[in-house]
Amino acid sequence: MPASISTGHRGRRDRLRLSLTDVDALLVGDLINVRYLSGFTGSNGAVLCRTEDSADRIATDGRYRTQVGTQSPDLTATIERDVLHALLQRAADDGLRKVGVEAAHLTLADYTRLTASFDGTLELIPTSGIVEGLREVKDAAEIDLLTQACAAADRALAAIIDAGEIRPGRTEREVARALEWEMYRQGADAVAFETIVAAGENSAIPHHRPTDAVLATGDFVKIDFGAVVGGYHSDMTRTYVLGHAADWQREIYELVSDAQRAGRQALKPGADLRGVDAAARDVIVAAGHGEHYVHGLGHGVGLQIHEAPGIGSLATGTLPFGAAVTVEPGVYLPGAGGVRIEDTLVVTDGDPILLTTTDKTFTVL
Amino acid sequence: MPASISTGHRGRRDRLRLSLTDVDALLVGDLINVRYLSGFTGSNGAVLCRTEDSADRIATDGRYRTQVGTQSPDLTATIERDVLHALLQRAADDGLRKVGVEAAHLTLADYTRLTASFDGTLELIPTSGIVEGLREVKDAAEIDLLTQACAAADRALAAIIDAGEIRPGRTEREVARALEWEMYRQGADAVAFETIVAAGENSAIPHHRPTDAVLATGDFVKIDFGAVVGGYHSDMTRTYVLGHAADWQREIYELVSDAQRAGRQALKPGADLRGVDAAARDVIVAAGHGEHYVHGLGHGVGLQIHEAPGIGSLATGTLPFGAAVTVEPGVYLPGAGGVRIEDTLVVTDGDPILLTTTDKTFTVL
Repeated sequence: MPASISTGHRGRRDRLRLSLTDVDALLVGDLINVRYLSGFTGSNGAVLCRTEDSADRIATDGRYRTQVGTQSPDLTATIERDVLHALLQRAADDGLRKVGVEAAHLTLADYTRLTASFDGTLELIPTSGIVEGLREVKDAAEIDLLTQACAAADRALAAIIDAGEIRPGRTEREVARALEWEMYRQGADAVAFETIVAAGENSAIPHHRPTDAVLATGDFVKIDFGAVVGGYHSDMTRTYVLGHAADWQREIYELVSDAQRAGRQALKPGADLRGVDAAARDVIVAAGHGEHYVHGLGHGVGLQIHEAPGIGSLATGTLPFGAAVTVEPGVYLPGAGGVRIEDTLVVTDGDPILLTTTDKTFTVL
Repeated sequence: MPASISTGHRGRRDRLRLSLTDVDALLVGDLINVRYLSGFTGSNGAVLCRTEDSADRIATDGRYRTQVGTQSPDLTATIERDVLHALLQRAADDGLRKVGVEAAHLTLADYTRLTASFDGTLELIPTSGIVEGLREVKDAAEIDLLTQACAAADRALAAIIDAGEIRPGRTEREVARALEWEMYRQGADAVAFETIVAAGENSAIPHHRPTDAVLATGDFVKIDFGAVVGGYHSDMTRTYVLGHAADWQREIYELVSDAQRAGRQALKPGADLRGVDAAARDVIVAAGHGEHYVHGLGHGVGLQIHEAPGIGSLATGTLPFGAAVTVEPGVYLPGAGGVRIEDTLVVTDGDPILLTTTDKTFTVL
């Protein structure tokens, strides 16, 4: 449905326009932000979004002439390799004077070069996090893609469990590759990040990379993975036990499960981010495992696997309505094993929408 | 062999030291350059390389405390989240005054923030491409890893051909996934980029992404892919015909093959980069297909899939001894099909070393 997609991108630029102050336009050069505002996915591109009217422009080079016409039909395209210079030249030609730039993405080299090029014509104004702020609140098209990405991941995990892939004798690497392969079969365009499969003692390492370690009876197997559909990422962690479970495994699993539930229940529009983190963390601290929970509770997810808002003990700000975030507490016992349980959810006025629907009751495979 | 690897990184920093002028140190924040100079592969890190002595430092955050000790045993590590600030603070404490920064990688936001923080203490000097220049000349450890990456790709292609994966009835996507899967089996840590499998008319699109298009008898099948081993990328393209070949297919294949040979033979230390491009391009232009060859001849390859030097008609400079580059001319006939033949090679005083050894005589599968 190109028409509605294009309306969606125009709507995002209109929202951006409303948040621009003291500039005649914003020059957007970060490729993720360019995609958000235009739908364009090429490797070289920029968008100029004007404050006073909607005569926005996109620039890219000749490799993407056809693609930009297809992906961004509602934007006038300038075809030049130096996309930042090309759009600023247009701005200057149109009589604009003050153009915002993305200080967190523009390099010092580009800033110096462009400032010199347009000396006396344009004033470049550093701005911070404007598009990223808009991206915190997902629109319907984004939630649809996040839902598809999470569903592809759910189906892939179910398929490899049904096929008996997660069993003693397999290596972490084999399980990871099987899961990634299955995500593609289930409709993923890409994997969201390098799949984590961590067995036995390795499950106590929060960001373990899969090795040739062999899964054994009695192991925790922690699997953290995601799919990408239409640019949007899913993120889910499940932890299983192989064969038979020891009491300590059941105990820390139930503890993490309780903490994760408390974290999910704290997801409300306007909730203080540190408060959301604390809702889950307090459960783990009260059980005496605070020192074994060494990371934040979650993060925004969308066109990037990690984006605003971050939910942690040092976070500032509140959770907006429509944010898509992960909730992923963990307890890691060095030398023994660890548990993390993670879902991706969307914040609403009622209960958050659970996008990752794989069962998370304690399971022995 | 940690000892020799560590010596290698120290040697790279010593070469960097020799190329520093007018600064007391260089602050390296680009993660690829950090890896090159230190071996460190975490997602947050920076290196301060000093001009007058070898008291270099690395900084990263607490997640990588163990990893940095293992990967960079010859560097003193500072553990702080704001790695750029931490290293500049050390430089100031040590009495340094002028510190070079990487203008092409430092963001305007970081430059502004750091300049303000060290106002009156340190002078930050924008520099350009210093480490990238060193990286053009590969050392023995790098050539070893490039060789392993190319060999893994060679073996993977041979395996899927032997298994009959490239045949009528398979989709582009299935062939791509089979090849990627096989690269992992053959020792790749990752794939170098999204594998291109382009069949029939799609082979006329230089950077086609695999679709559900079904391979058919008489099709060109163009396969452009690579493996990563130890951070180093291979890059190879082969083009086959399925079932039986038409005369026009044989003709353009032989033309591209002649052009590619001419390009390889032009790889000499000190050769003008435009001259190398022209050596291959002239063959194609002379046959009347100049307009069907729409990209440059090749590019450097190493820790990045595309790095300096670029070999094209607008390139400047010369080819250094020890450069690892691709040679990849192509002829693309819109609506009919296209051929590209690509190898990765290392420039030496004699013949270049051919790292991608898969047969490239005209082959009907």
